[in-house]
Amino acid sequence: MKIGISGTGSYIPSIVTKNEAFLEHDFLGTDGTAFGHDNTVIIEKFKSITGIAERRYAKPELKNSDLGYLAAEKAIEDAGIDKEELDYIIFAHNFGDLNHGEIQGDTLPSLATRVKHLLKIKNPRCVAYDMIFGCPGWIEGVIQGYAFIKSGMAKKCLIIGGETLSRVIDQHDRDSMIYSDGAGACILQANPDSGEILSHDSVTHANGEAFYLYFDKTYNNEGCPNTRYIKMHGRKIYEFACTHVPQAMADCLNESGVPIDEVKKIFIHQANEKMDEAIVKRFYRLYGKAIPEDIMPMSIHKLGNSSVATIPTLYDLVRNGELENHQLQKGDVIIFASVGAGMNINAMVYKY
Amino acid sequence: MKIGISGTGSYIPSIVTKNEAFLEHDFLGTDGTAFGHDNTVIIEKFKSITGIAERRYAKPELKNSDLGYLAAEKAIEDAGIDKEELDYIIFAHNFGDLNHGEIQGDTLPSLATRVKHLLKIKNPRCVAYDMIFGCPGWIEGVIQGYAFIKSGMAKKCLIIGGETLSRVIDQHDRDSMIYSDGAGACILQANPDSGEILSHDSVTHANGEAFYLYFDKTYNNEGCPNTRYIKMHGRKIYEFACTHVPQAMADCLNESGVPIDEVKKIFIHQANEKMDEAIVKRFYRLYGKAIPEDIMPMSIHKLGNSSVATIPTLYDLVRNGELENHQLQKGDVIIFASVGAGMNINAMVYKY
Repeated sequence: MKIGISGTGSYIPSIVTKNEAFLEHDFLGTDGTAFGHDNTVIIEKFKSITGIAERRYAKPELKNSDLGYLAAEKAIEDAGIDKEELDYIIFAHNFGDLNHGEIQGDTLPSLATRVKHLLKIKNPRCVAYDMIFGCPGWIEGVIQGYAFIKSGMAKKCLIIGGETLSRVIDQHDRDSMIYSDGAGACILQANPDSGEILSHDSVTHANGEAFYLYFDKTYNNEGCPNTRYIKMHGRKIYEFACTHVPQAMADCLNESGVPIDEVKKIFIHQANEKMDEAIVKRFYRLYGKAIPEDIMPMSIHKLGNSSVATIPTLYDLVRNGELENHQLQKGDVIIFASVGAGMNINAMVYKY
Repeated sequence: MKIGISGTGSYIPSIVTKNEAFLEHDFLGTDGTAFGHDNTVIIEKFKSITGIAERRYAKPELKNSDLGYLAAEKAIEDAGIDKEELDYIIFAHNFGDLNHGEIQGDTLPSLATRVKHLLKIKNPRCVAYDMIFGCPGWIEGVIQGYAFIKSGMAKKCLIIGGETLSRVIDQHDRDSMIYSDGAGACILQANPDSGEILSHDSVTHANGEAFYLYFDKTYNNEGCPNTRYIKMHGRKIYEFACTHVPQAMADCLNESGVPIDEVKKIFIHQANEKMDEAIVKRFYRLYGKAIPEDIMPMSIHKLGNSSVATIPTLYDLVRNGELENHQLQKGDVIIFASVGAGMNINAMVYKY
């Protein structure tokens, strides 16, 4: 049985926040002291590594489930299916719904239920649940939908990745500049007109790596010690990703049986431009090849890192011809790959 | 292929909180005003409906993931498997890890990753993720493990349900007396020595019902409006459950092909004794039968409602002969059924 993506949709929030918006921020080191240079230097260095020039934030009145709903609505329309035929709604996120200006995540009820509510789906047999798997959550949701379809438990699944990271960042942490908001979605179904998952692979490294991304108090020593924000050991993540992601991608590609030269595009989690380039370069090196031109569509420059939302958004942009130099033709083989909190890595080889 | 539960484990927290502990609580109505009678009356009425006389709270130094780890360790030992052989760790919860005395849930990294970390599992191919599906989350996790095994993606899965509800309750809400802490776990595997899932069924009612359980501020008008707690429309949930759960159970039983008279035990989510009795009574009424004696093991009197943890804990207690008048023999057919936030309902017919 062929199982593939029959429709995609994304919601790119409307508030554009440029790097200059961080010029007046009071950035502090982990010990709570100020840096010895001004923010222009910090921001320039940040941009040269991550590639991020601007990012998107959701309007205050929208929550994560609203972004997910807006992306889902487009994916359903794009697939041309009746929403009442959906067997599953899988919502991948990590922080739930956050009201603007508040820090307590809300997952009661699940965000998938909220999307189902907003979509006004009546069929109770459309099962809605949330999934937490770090940034690779959306790919993992697709793999779960694949398992449901393969095992005969479902025919059509809606998989959403959505996050409002702008609401869990510590304003005193330089890393806060990385994060953004967004949502992407797809319809996965049995026997689509085109498209097929050829192979997939997932791993969780939970020994020394488990807390590379973690929740902790602000770097401002006068801040509330009970309020926690997204934090990361950036260098460790960088090294971890460069060591493990290329091999996971290669394992997945080898399992698919597709020769490396037939890979047309790699959709990689938009975490950090330099890191993504290093990963893909090392991936090709495993095959004794140089990295081909235009293999890697990137949206990080303008959209930042919206966690689970980056890949479905990027894929939706390319499918719709909205990214220069990046087109897909029927039959093209592509790779999806992600890495994030867990530490989790996954990859999927897909025939478009 | 036979897919069944080869081991179980549970962790029952050590702090016993009796109903008398609520005598001095300042209970308020939804409008913030006091009730016209004292707490003895409130507590008596509460006990007569829910059956709860006492509940368990986790020690301050333990978090939800710790409870889950303690239950998981026992399940692995009970199944007699090598932990490194696990293909999945699925942790069902709804509020993440909460530090004692704090109200901000932490899911970075996922609780499944934390359990994998505590279990010191090295194999990266053991994929760890969290799942949010209201109180029926543990059964749904088992169904997801079933899909992975059935589709050939896994052979052995660890499924955990854990919650520390004592840390998300509004002290001014009478309903706070219902909730408790706990964790239960099982190993699901292909071709176990005994045990087999015969059928399963899940539904999500997300129209008018989506927000029957919800997150909201304290009933104390002087409390912080940005801090939110678990809240419910109890009467609506009661009516919803009595209307929909019996039919879901019947659909599942009919699908299994097992005659009603062969059902030996029903493991139902420990939400409310009167409600659970009404559900099972109506279930038998659908078959024109009276409710058999000792069909329904109950732990709510002493353990309260620990959400996702009630069913795996109850099942573990019965398997270990720790609940009077309740034994299981090889070949017995049993039903698992749950209802909760979503509103989600699921059921599973299982041959022991």
